[in-house]
Amino acid sequence: MMPGEVFPMKIAFLGLGAMGYPMAANLSRNHEVTVWNRTPEVARRHAGEHGTTFADSLDQCATADVVISIVPTSAEVAELARIVTAAGLRSGVLWMDMTSGDPQTSRATAAGLEEKGIRFVDAPVTGGTPGAEAGTLTIMIGGSAEDFERAREICASMGTRIVHVGAIGAGHAVKAVNNAMLAANLWAAAEGLLSLKALGLDLEKALEVINSGSGRSNASENLLPSRIIGGEWPLTFKLALLDKDVRIAASMAHSQHLATPLIGLTSTLFTAALKELGAGADYMEVAKFVTSLNGERWPGEKSS
Amino acid sequence: MMPGEVFPMKIAFLGLGAMGYPMAANLSRNHEVTVWNRTPEVARRHAGEHGTTFADSLDQCATADVVISIVPTSAEVAELARIVTAAGLRSGVLWMDMTSGDPQTSRATAAGLEEKGIRFVDAPVTGGTPGAEAGTLTIMIGGSAEDFERAREICASMGTRIVHVGAIGAGHAVKAVNNAMLAANLWAAAEGLLSLKALGLDLEKALEVINSGSGRSNASENLLPSRIIGGEWPLTFKLALLDKDVRIAASMAHSQHLATPLIGLTSTLFTAALKELGAGADYMEVAKFVTSLNGERWPGEKSS
Amino acid sequence: MMPGEVFPMKIAFLGLGAMGYPMAANLSRNHEVTVWNRTPEVARRHAGEHGTTFADSLDQCATADVVISIVPTSAEVAELARIVTAAGLRSGVLWMDMTSGDPQTSRATAAGLEEKGIRFVDAPVTGGTPGAEAGTLTIMIGGSAEDFERAREICASMGTRIVHVGAIGAGHAVKAVNNAMLAANLWAAAEGLLSLKALGLDLEKALEVINSGSGRSNASENLLPSRIIGGEWPLTFKLALLDKDVRIAASMAHSQHLATPLIGLTSTLFTAALKELGAGADYMEVAKFVTSLNGERWPGEKSS
Amino acid sequence: MMPGEVFPMKIAFLGLGAMGYPMAANLSRNHEVTVWNRTPEVARRHAGEHGTTFADSLDQCATADVVISIVPTSAEVAELARIVTAAGLRSGVLWMDMTSGDPQTSRATAAGLEEKGIRFVDAPVTGGTPGAEAGTLTIMIGGSAEDFERAREICASMGTRIVHVGAIGAGHAVKAVNNAMLAANLWAAAEGLLSLKALGLDLEKALEVINSGSGRSNASENLLPSRIIGGEWPLTFKLALLDKDVRIAASMAHSQHLATPLIGLTSTLFTAALKELGAGADYMEVAKFVTSLNGERWPGEKSS
Repeated sequence: MMPGEVFPMKIAFLGLGAMGYPMAANLSRNHEVTVWNRTPEVARRHAGEHGTTFADSLDQCATADVVISIVPTSAEVAELARIVTAAGLRSGVLWMDMTSGDPQTSRATAAGLEEKGIRFVDAPVTGGTPGAEAGTLTIMIGGSAEDFERAREICASMGTRIVHVGAIGAGHAVKAVNNAMLAANLWAAAEGLLSLKALGLDLEKALEVINSGSGRSNASENLLPSRIIGGEWPLTFKLALLDKDVRIAASMAHSQHLATPLIGLTSTLFTAALKELGAGADYMEVAKFVTSLNGERWPGEKSS
Repeated sequence: MMPGEVFPMKIAFLGLGAMGYPMAANLSRNHEVTVWNRTPEVARRHAGEHGTTFADSLDQCATADVVISIVPTSAEVAELARIVTAAGLRSGVLWMDMTSGDPQTSRATAAGLEEKGIRFVDAPVTGGTPGAEAGTLTIMIGGSAEDFERAREICASMGTRIVHVGAIGAGHAVKAVNNAMLAANLWAAAEGLLSLKALGLDLEKALEVINSGSGRSNASENLLPSRIIGGEWPLTFKLALLDKDVRIAASMAHSQHLATPLIGLTSTLFTAALKELGAGADYMEVAKFVTSLNGERWPGEKSS
Repeated sequence: MMPGEVFPMKIAFLGLGAMGYPMAANLSRNHEVTVWNRTPEVARRHAGEHGTTFADSLDQCATADVVISIVPTSAEVAELARIVTAAGLRSGVLWMDMTSGDPQTSRATAAGLEEKGIRFVDAPVTGGTPGAEAGTLTIMIGGSAEDFERAREICASMGTRIVHVGAIGAGHAVKAVNNAMLAANLWAAAEGLLSLKALGLDLEKALEVINSGSGRSNASENLLPSRIIGGEWPLTFKLALLDKDVRIAASMAHSQHLATPLIGLTSTLFTAALKELGAGADYMEVAKFVTSLNGERWPGEKSS
Repeated sequence: MMPGEVFPMKIAFLGLGAMGYPMAANLSRNHEVTVWNRTPEVARRHAGEHGTTFADSLDQCATADVVISIVPTSAEVAELARIVTAAGLRSGVLWMDMTSGDPQTSRATAAGLEEKGIRFVDAPVTGGTPGAEAGTLTIMIGGSAEDFERAREICASMGTRIVHVGAIGAGHAVKAVNNAMLAANLWAAAEGLLSLKALGLDLEKALEVINSGSGRSNASENLLPSRIIGGEWPLTFKLALLDKDVRIAASMAHSQHLATPLIGLTSTLFTAALKELGAGADYMEVAKFVTSLNGERWPGEKSS
């Protein structure tokens, strides 16, 4: 907390998606929260349910002490920052961007805000909607040490593990790499299991062994079994969003002139899967793409 | 246990490597174990330390009720099977091959043994030397239901999770896929972390976040931190052996005419790493190959 | 020609596919040719059209001085060799296998024939059906120097460039590598042109430049333009056969423990394309798979 | 030629590298050419040898009717454009950028020039230093139809095939794709030939066959034989520059969200090769990287 900052703070919260909605609700227990959403109905409903203040225009967000954004991509954050600063956002305000964004665009947005004396941290999260609802997210923060301290106070209402990972953009970088690792682990597991399935093995038994063995990952332990065996394919996180994150990770390596063949190929494969499965698909459905490429089907895959 | 089988059984144990040595010791608590090793001194030492019977020739193994083999590759198992059956191994014996082998060679070996009335299961393990010593291995078994029951009795002295995964070769198939998943997870993590390191991030913090997040795997949680940050690179499992397993997984997909691009590329990368690092390298040193390809170095990597 | 061999020779020709049919016709101008085909009608027609002798059974081929096989895969060659030798093929006979086969199977077949005193060369061809009809094929031969000399005499009726590339299997190896290079060149060109098409460029102009430039290949000069621009997609060579050859090339590298990432990935991509396009597709239709994976279409691609 | 333009034109030529030097010489036969080079000695020598006018400052280039730039990357073109326009370059001037640049940066540079009324075409070349010296380059031009006509007149002094491939950036796009195809064709050929070499085949014979066959490419016909067999590895084109072009092609696909796995992997492999071989290496030396990754060596590779 900066000297002179007092609780509760005035926070403008931009973006009430599957994650933002419960995060803003948790935040409103400790702070005065004004909510804005591209589709205003959602913000109006949030105000009704959680006692937040409904903003039908971004102009109403310009009086906040802290602005939080959590939207699909960094391009939209840049646009929001342009509009809210034009509406008079004050010097000294902290802009916390919780989007899964890209480091490069964030650094440009931060530089633009800096000219108005507005501070920026990127603060993407992991933990899914359950973590967002329970207030137990992990939040990875990029920015100065001082801004991190301010952000930490606010994040305490939303998460339990709040980590300062580096300078501006570092939060986005870690999030992108985390998601690229998820993507690679998931795809590799699907390929391996497909190979066992094609040999006629019992996948449940195989997964039991692998998940007590060295090949296990979050993907093999917590994500794949209920889908490929159990046949449950809920929409939990859009493939289009994971594809975006893997592309950010691939771009980070490319722009640093690093040779990262496995993340590169993973990104290509996710792009092909996205085009086949469509923008509305859940990210776990890439496992269906791995089988369909091979004319196969998981036990837990309905005939289409 | 087959009708008429009595404990303790006469077991010939072939191969006293880092895994086989403690496994045979555990087995000898419940059974009469004769040990053979390519380098006889090791078998002689085992007999001295654990009260097993030293065999200086494979001929002495032909009177066993059960033969266990755990050697580098399936080619050596085939050779051992040829020699021991020529020495008079009786019909009804169970041959348990605990090597990390390949399904195709195992099926051929099993067919040869079958002609003499000898039963075969493949029963590779996971859990490392700590699991071998503690008798807490996971053992994945391929073979008939009946042979699995016999094998389970014996495995109870060596492991705690004993799973029947399918027909002959299925154990090897699951082991190969487990190790290919380990290889892919490990390599993808190394690429992602390299990318963060090159951006100047604190890898310890990044790993803390990832390991509480969705991108985590056994590789990122239990294997990478002590090496790339801690600077400890012990020899725990030869890269040459992991490379062999990944190649088996790639071959399984290839021979089934499956398109598995990520496992295919992982296998290629491990082969390149093996040629650069040498046959004596530990498998985790592939993380050093990922950096050296990019002219980088981990915090926990000494200058050479 | 061996001492004592006289022209015309008695040749059994096994396999009258798109290539074999005209090759046998050319051969029959200089030799006494007996033709056999899995579907006998084709052989009967060949006899009628070209004055060859129709064999309705492989037994009738056992009296030949030279056997030529040109069938889909080496597995079928092995089977043919087994049958014809069982029917009494004499010691000293030369078996010329003109199949696009795999070196490993060929070496095994040759070893089996060798036990009967039958000589073997692998002699796959390149030049397509136009070259087969005109008798201007390139023929790459693996075998001993002496056997090559015998084969060269016979090949002179079918091709104009007859090259001794190495020991048994070498012909198949070169053919597989040639086709893998074709596959990679073709796929890379399709990806590059897709990228230009998506930017809105005129592909005809782009190809004009590339084909006068350093990126040109047989694929970009002679194969792609009439398809992706001209819209002609004739069936000239089955994708299933090219996929087989690329797989042989990938296997050759794998079994030699070589890291060949680009050929490895090309093989994976062809396998995926084959599963999508079906066994009856022409090999050039992989260019359509490159676009369809990306929701695009070539100018010369009809809407389906 | 624009109405009112008269020959000879006043041309400022920026960048006298291996290509630019002879191109400017050819141009000076028909035009008044002022030459500038980052290292002024080269420009002074050019003036002495070819009767061009030496500019020791970019300010002296601001009076030209046409500016030609041919420098390592588009970033340097942007910087040159900024300086020369600041020095007073007039409205109506044509800026022809013959750099192997990237479309995105070129479009931004063109937009900046457009504000001053200066026209821009990208006009990269292919044909190497022999083509540059002989005036027989192929020149691929991106820009408006009108600007293309102006550029064509000038290009006639340097090349024989001058093609309008699309709007601004299209020339760079085609050049990048051409070079990515070269890179892929080259690498695939090296992998295939390595595989044959490891089998003990005669590479000269193998190349003879492939180059009369369907797998041939400019790389296999004109580039590889003299190196891998002949042992001549001259510096003709820096690997760093080819790597840059392949990276541009990969970026073009990435920014268009296209799945192009083969070009993606080729780019990764070239980056790894560049880091191993160093910035001064010739592009053909990637063939040595393919062997060294595998502990092999070409016949035409000296022991190091």
